[in-house]
Amino acid sequence: MEIEIATIGGYEEVGRQMTAVRAGNDVVVFDMGLNLSKVLIHDNVETERMHSLDLIDMGAIPDDRVMSDLEGDVQAIVPTHGHLDHIGAISKLAHRYDAPIVASPFTLELVKQEIDSEEKFGVENDLRAMEAGETMSISEGVELEFVNVTHSVIDAINPVLHTPEGAVVYGLDKRIDHDPVIGDPIDMDRFRQIGDEGVLCYIEDCTNAGKKGRTPSESVARRHLKDALTSMEDYDGGIVATTFSSHIARVKSLVEFADDIGRQPVLLGRSMEKYSGTAERLDFVDFPDDLGMYGHRKSVDRTFEQIMSEGKEDYLPIVTGHQGEPRAMLTRMARGETPYELENGDKVVFSARVIPEPTNEGQRYQAERLLGMQGARIYDDIHVSGHLRREGHYEMLEALRPDNLIPAHQSMEGFAPYVDTAEAFGFEIGEDLHITRNGNMIQLVE
Amino acid sequence: MEIEIATIGGYEEVGRQMTAVRAGNDVVVFDMGLNLSKVLIHDNVETERMHSLDLIDMGAIPDDRVMSDLEGDVQAIVPTHGHLDHIGAISKLAHRYDAPIVASPFTLELVKQEIDSEEKFGVENDLRAMEAGETMSISEGVELEFVNVTHSVIDAINPVLHTPEGAVVYGLDKRIDHDPVIGDPIDMDRFRQIGDEGVLCYIEDCTNAGKKGRTPSESVARRHLKDALTSMEDYDGGIVATTFSSHIARVKSLVEFADDIGRQPVLLGRSMEKYSGTAERLDFVDFPDDLGMYGHRKSVDRTFEQIMSEGKEDYLPIVTGHQGEPRAMLTRMARGETPYELENGDKVVFSARVIPEPTNEGQRYQAERLLGMQGARIYDDIHVSGHLRREGHYEMLEALRPDNLIPAHQSMEGFAPYVDTAEAFGFEIGEDLHITRNGNMIQLVE
Amino acid sequence: MEIEIATIGGYEEVGRQMTAVRAGNDVVVFDMGLNLSKVLIHDNVETERMHSLDLIDMGAIPDDRVMSDLEGDVQAIVPTHGHLDHIGAISKLAHRYDAPIVASPFTLELVKQEIDSEEKFGVENDLRAMEAGETMSISEGVELEFVNVTHSVIDAINPVLHTPEGAVVYGLDKRIDHDPVIGDPIDMDRFRQIGDEGVLCYIEDCTNAGKKGRTPSESVARRHLKDALTSMEDYDGGIVATTFSSHIARVKSLVEFADDIGRQPVLLGRSMEKYSGTAERLDFVDFPDDLGMYGHRKSVDRTFEQIMSEGKEDYLPIVTGHQGEPRAMLTRMARGETPYELENGDKVVFSARVIPEPTNEGQRYQAERLLGMQGARIYDDIHVSGHLRREGHYEMLEALRPDNLIPAHQSMEGFAPYVDTAEAFGFEIGEDLHITRNGNMIQLVE
Amino acid sequence: MEIEIATIGGYEEVGRQMTAVRAGNDVVVFDMGLNLSKVLIHDNVETERMHSLDLIDMGAIPDDRVMSDLEGDVQAIVPTHGHLDHIGAISKLAHRYDAPIVASPFTLELVKQEIDSEEKFGVENDLRAMEAGETMSISEGVELEFVNVTHSVIDAINPVLHTPEGAVVYGLDKRIDHDPVIGDPIDMDRFRQIGDEGVLCYIEDCTNAGKKGRTPSESVARRHLKDALTSMEDYDGGIVATTFSSHIARVKSLVEFADDIGRQPVLLGRSMEKYSGTAERLDFVDFPDDLGMYGHRKSVDRTFEQIMSEGKEDYLPIVTGHQGEPRAMLTRMARGETPYELENGDKVVFSARVIPEPTNEGQRYQAERLLGMQGARIYDDIHVSGHLRREGHYEMLEALRPDNLIPAHQSMEGFAPYVDTAEAFGFEIGEDLHITRNGNMIQLVE
Repeated sequence: MEIEIATIGGYEEVGRQMTAVRAGNDVVVFDMGLNLSKVLIHDNVETERMHSLDLIDMGAIPDDRVMSDLEGDVQAIVPTHGHLDHIGAISKLAHRYDAPIVASPFTLELVKQEIDSEEKFGVENDLRAMEAGETMSISEGVELEFVNVTHSVIDAINPVLHTPEGAVVYGLDKRIDHDPVIGDPIDMDRFRQIGDEGVLCYIEDCTNAGKKGRTPSESVARRHLKDALTSMEDYDGGIVATTFSSHIARVKSLVEFADDIGRQPVLLGRSMEKYSGTAERLDFVDFPDDLGMYGHRKSVDRTFEQIMSEGKEDYLPIVTGHQGEPRAMLTRMARGETPYELENGDKVVFSARVIPEPTNEGQRYQAERLLGMQGARIYDDIHVSGHLRREGHYEMLEALRPDNLIPAHQSMEGFAPYVDTAEAFGFEIGEDLHITRNGNMIQLVE
Repeated sequence: MEIEIATIGGYEEVGRQMTAVRAGNDVVVFDMGLNLSKVLIHDNVETERMHSLDLIDMGAIPDDRVMSDLEGDVQAIVPTHGHLDHIGAISKLAHRYDAPIVASPFTLELVKQEIDSEEKFGVENDLRAMEAGETMSISEGVELEFVNVTHSVIDAINPVLHTPEGAVVYGLDKRIDHDPVIGDPIDMDRFRQIGDEGVLCYIEDCTNAGKKGRTPSESVARRHLKDALTSMEDYDGGIVATTFSSHIARVKSLVEFADDIGRQPVLLGRSMEKYSGTAERLDFVDFPDDLGMYGHRKSVDRTFEQIMSEGKEDYLPIVTGHQGEPRAMLTRMARGETPYELENGDKVVFSARVIPEPTNEGQRYQAERLLGMQGARIYDDIHVSGHLRREGHYEMLEALRPDNLIPAHQSMEGFAPYVDTAEAFGFEIGEDLHITRNGNMIQLVE
Repeated sequence: MEIEIATIGGYEEVGRQMTAVRAGNDVVVFDMGLNLSKVLIHDNVETERMHSLDLIDMGAIPDDRVMSDLEGDVQAIVPTHGHLDHIGAISKLAHRYDAPIVASPFTLELVKQEIDSEEKFGVENDLRAMEAGETMSISEGVELEFVNVTHSVIDAINPVLHTPEGAVVYGLDKRIDHDPVIGDPIDMDRFRQIGDEGVLCYIEDCTNAGKKGRTPSESVARRHLKDALTSMEDYDGGIVATTFSSHIARVKSLVEFADDIGRQPVLLGRSMEKYSGTAERLDFVDFPDDLGMYGHRKSVDRTFEQIMSEGKEDYLPIVTGHQGEPRAMLTRMARGETPYELENGDKVVFSARVIPEPTNEGQRYQAERLLGMQGARIYDDIHVSGHLRREGHYEMLEALRPDNLIPAHQSMEGFAPYVDTAEAFGFEIGEDLHITRNGNMIQLVE
Repeated sequence: MEIEIATIGGYEEVGRQMTAVRAGNDVVVFDMGLNLSKVLIHDNVETERMHSLDLIDMGAIPDDRVMSDLEGDVQAIVPTHGHLDHIGAISKLAHRYDAPIVASPFTLELVKQEIDSEEKFGVENDLRAMEAGETMSISEGVELEFVNVTHSVIDAINPVLHTPEGAVVYGLDKRIDHDPVIGDPIDMDRFRQIGDEGVLCYIEDCTNAGKKGRTPSESVARRHLKDALTSMEDYDGGIVATTFSSHIARVKSLVEFADDIGRQPVLLGRSMEKYSGTAERLDFVDFPDDLGMYGHRKSVDRTFEQIMSEGKEDYLPIVTGHQGEPRAMLTRMARGETPYELENGDKVVFSARVIPEPTNEGQRYQAERLLGMQGARIYDDIHVSGHLRREGHYEMLEALRPDNLIPAHQSMEGFAPYVDTAEAFGFEIGEDLHITRNGNMIQLVE
């Protein structure tokens, strides 16, 4: 059976991921993502109303016109998890394909919300939920399987396309976490089994490939966070925390530790409400019944007023704004635009790392300066990444021993350290290690 | 009562700490340390045989000739913990003073070993053990107290000299750790009490004052280490670990996690044997009965031979060499100078951070290159510092609210960020915030 | 005669410089500057309409209320050169003092323009021009002298206040440049003479004190710039250059090299027109008669249209925007908001260094990304600083051998490396080396 | 005609360069270099006595066993310039080939010296000098040409193999310098001509491909150096300079500026004598008749004694040791192992950049610390690189417009930014942009 891989987007950058695998006459698409930074660099762009082609020209969504070169029918569109760089282009591109969108339940719900907010296109593909561990038949001899993985958002999977020529493992966006706080550990046993059965190709996310060692478990970040918050137990002023809104495990830890130190947690900001609300509705997390979640500015401000009148020392607001985004809640607080008044000695906990890009760094720096001007004390970098580091990559190679390897999810600078690791394992560029770019085809079996 | 502080050493660098506090006619000396880097930069220097004055000229030990300007008698020499930069000059300087050396039991035992290995001077001062929480009378109205603190070596204390004018708190070398793996948490309650009673002066270690947030607890490093070693559970080749030999809590964690993943731990290298042996003898740690500790090269090599013949997969050697020191055990292993043979895929765990100085960085890089040439995989930076970061300093100021503040244990570059924190708290240079240098006197009460 | 120094502003940051020296009953004020970053961090602030006290509260201008503690009359306000961090608060503060503003001709003209654009206060102090090398009597035995120095703006001086107790040298903002392209070399002979006569106090700008070596001469930057532009001689597309608008020597070099490679230079942007126009009017520089300078958007756009129609290959626009400022000309070009169309391979020359602060770095990165998206090639960092590096400071100390030394123009982090250099020269903190902060008084002679 | 390229060494690292080009039945080899760092990491290795295979196993010299897969006869071995990473393996490998060594005169002389000091192998290949601009016939329709380029050593060339299928340009190790101080400017006109005639393949050195802008001309470094030395004109103590021994243009500038400031230059250290002596003998440089050059320790020490007795203020020793190499002259001076006594305020000029690798950085740091302990003042980084930066690469692509592009002289991390530039120019990986590794074959024409 012919096996061909189209590396459509995310092979020259982080963001706008899209990969198609053709097995015989059938094609499965993995991810349709958005590169938000390509949008934000322009003033006043509203993606909801933009046409796909304009977004393609901006480099914001994958250029899927190369799909016409793939001789086969798309049987499934498979987003691997709910981050925008993996699902953010579905509302712009999916309607061109007569195929269902197949995803894990949490991911699927986020896809649904994306589609609902789209104003330009009507996306009417079937939405089909599939759990980690389940499989779906694509065609004679070709089967799609979801393997449970651990990432910085819940319900992430690595899809595996089983073909008569071996498995194609789409490995984007995970860390090897044996104790992920929410959900099951990564299913390394299944990866080893698949490795034993024979892997034709492994497509891997290189984000942290240049970092030494392995990414710690979420439970390490949780222990770190607990340590930080416990140390504030005796403080009787304001404490505010921020983290990635989609990082439900972290939000859960914050909620629990707030309670441990005698403070009532409350989630504030539109994304906070969206992701945590969705996770709770789908029973991925069991928050206290009285946990407040507010997204609209009015209800947020009302909550702040209540906190100010009842006493800051009894609350732990968990807010958006961990990257210093100009319009996020924490930045508004830093500018004094909310009823919450920061005072000398108040603590602000960033359970997040600054995404290392000068624009972010500039915005985060501004936010911290503004917070500092109000006397706030900063606790930052209480976090672990959701992406494998070098030794995690090495361990995945030990488990899968693939015949072919395709680095993804990075620029060439980002691929380079992954190539080092792959070469140390025995792969060779031009042989079984494929350096590719957006829009390329790699024919693995002719 | 006149109170005067002589900032003798360690106020222009890290290393060779020494501070004297005069209360009326009585003087207490805190620390007598060595700056090892000033020795190592020269070839072929053996400190054991050198005279104090030569070591002073080299900048290796404190220039205590300023002590003659202090009008009073030394009543006690008080090393705060067992690191060389705090005890390493005792064997060269203590004999000049007719006063006992007062220290916590573990520290005192290390001081004793220093004195025993000294070849130039005979040090015959009394050695007096005092536990954290205990006090000792210095003179009428002047009392010495040990407050329990948490650092990267066990049994560390912060000495407090209570005087009629208020307490002088010598705050060098600690982090605020509420769960330190070995020993009691830092005694913040006592610090707060002392703060309430009135603190005349606080002398503070600025090592990490420029780092944001707070230093995590040793229990966070322990959780991280457990995570790393657990992830290697299925590996059936060699695993080697290294850490600071004096860091008994970390060694204990390594020993326990070795057992958890089905490997027999064994401590190798002279310092490993020295510190862990001492800690076990003094009952600070309860190692398994059959834990091997070997310092002499012959017994180390015999152990390696045994490991090679019985199977690397059954052992976890815990060795010296975390900074890539040229003659340490791990570097010898990297050079193939021991019977232990590293193979492709073997794991080397650095439970330590590189001390950020180009000489160290160069040596560590060399060691890692040599390890890499043999196929070893590196897991590094599994560590937390023993020194307060910015918010820990802020918390200490909140607890003590001292009348005067003296930054220590750093160069001027290192003082600078501490000054920022102190100023944010309300201190003013030239008023109650004293920037000082080696050899200065600060008269606090006239 | 009593000599006292009030370190009013710029002793905790770069920006809002202000220092007062009292000699007997007479006071001379050096600089009244603005810290622009304290303004820009807030949205929608227009300094022209703001009251001094609000600007003081923001940390934007010096808090000169400490002046009431100085027992003497202000006899002169002396800005040292035309940068905003030295003259930007004159329009807000000078009217409180009954004293002339004394400055070199170019600086004075810029002060005049500041005063003219002020909307809140009427500043009616006398404006008195004084050239480098000239002196002015302040009172019996007290004389003000201007010594010629070299900086990144023309006509900079270091004022020296000669008193019966020795000279007070206010050394802010210079490099030692023996070949400054415009104007005379720094007058080191005069500094050495003053050193021989006796210097009571030297106040020094620490901006680059942490950088090794010495700052190269402007002629080195000029040689570098010539090399870069010459290498583009054969390119037949667009070339655009940007630099600090106030850096007349650099603008002059750009204008000349444009001609050398057969292109017509044209200055575009409000600041470009302002500074270069002023310099030309005052005969500091002799530009070609037909050199266009346009500040208003309409005339700029008309010029761009002309360039596009006549051929980009015949022009070298020299524009504002070297730091990626969002509203500067180059950023507008990068966003495609001007008639000038960048094409693949076009060259953009940044004859400037990014000011190393995350906000700037973020903006500059954005500007470069936008330029890159249009195909532009970036030549950056063709520049030398206007501030002394470590060995320049050492050389000044060798020339002046002052009795007292006051580091200025930096945060504590910035002072730290200067202290190292001063200590290597023999100064001692607490003796003759004075670490001070905003709002302090230092009494040198009682 | 079949054209095939064997990328033998230097495609995974900097060092041990070797590339073979087959045109029909004839092969030309470009470079046979040494990777010195692979030797130095081991203790006590003497390459002169080692066998090729051992050096290949160490990764120190190219693994030329792949040459047996090339079906053709080697007609010439062509080292491009005299640096060890390009000629250092000739004495170990050239004797295996029945072909002349063809090089420019200065390079050839250095090759001869290498061969003479070899103790293991007898290398008896013909040595044939060829000047830039000259050609040599390889076979029917195949011709070798030397194009003059500018690098950090004199007499560097880029060899071009003209074939019926187009030119193969071997572009290693150059910058585009229009004013190189010694020798002719880079021959860009000839490159453009070759580009017009048709370039089948361009092999390019990626060393600085990640650095923005273009590498300045040697004349910029010369101007910078002049500025630094002129600033010391009035200093009446010791001044010492160091630079790359093989960098004759820089040595020449140092010699001239020494004279300008009234000091007698003298070259000290084995490599200083070797390279400058050779350059003078071959008439590449015209040093003053009385310029002393001493390599042997005895004569060096005698010179130092003379300097000390006659007065340091009259001399400028130009010595080896710019990277802090432990046994080089400057390091010996820093350790006080020579008769030259450094004093407080003496100046040490590093006309070199630290090679950015932790081992070097550690050694250089040690050397500077030792110099500082003796009071020396450091002027470093007065240098320009010999390698193209990003825009130089872009300009070469504009000149040559090759059909195929092969990045070389770097690790994958080093290739990555070059790929960015090449892609911006229109090249595509897997099409005309060939990412290759040591030991690969690339068949360009079948």
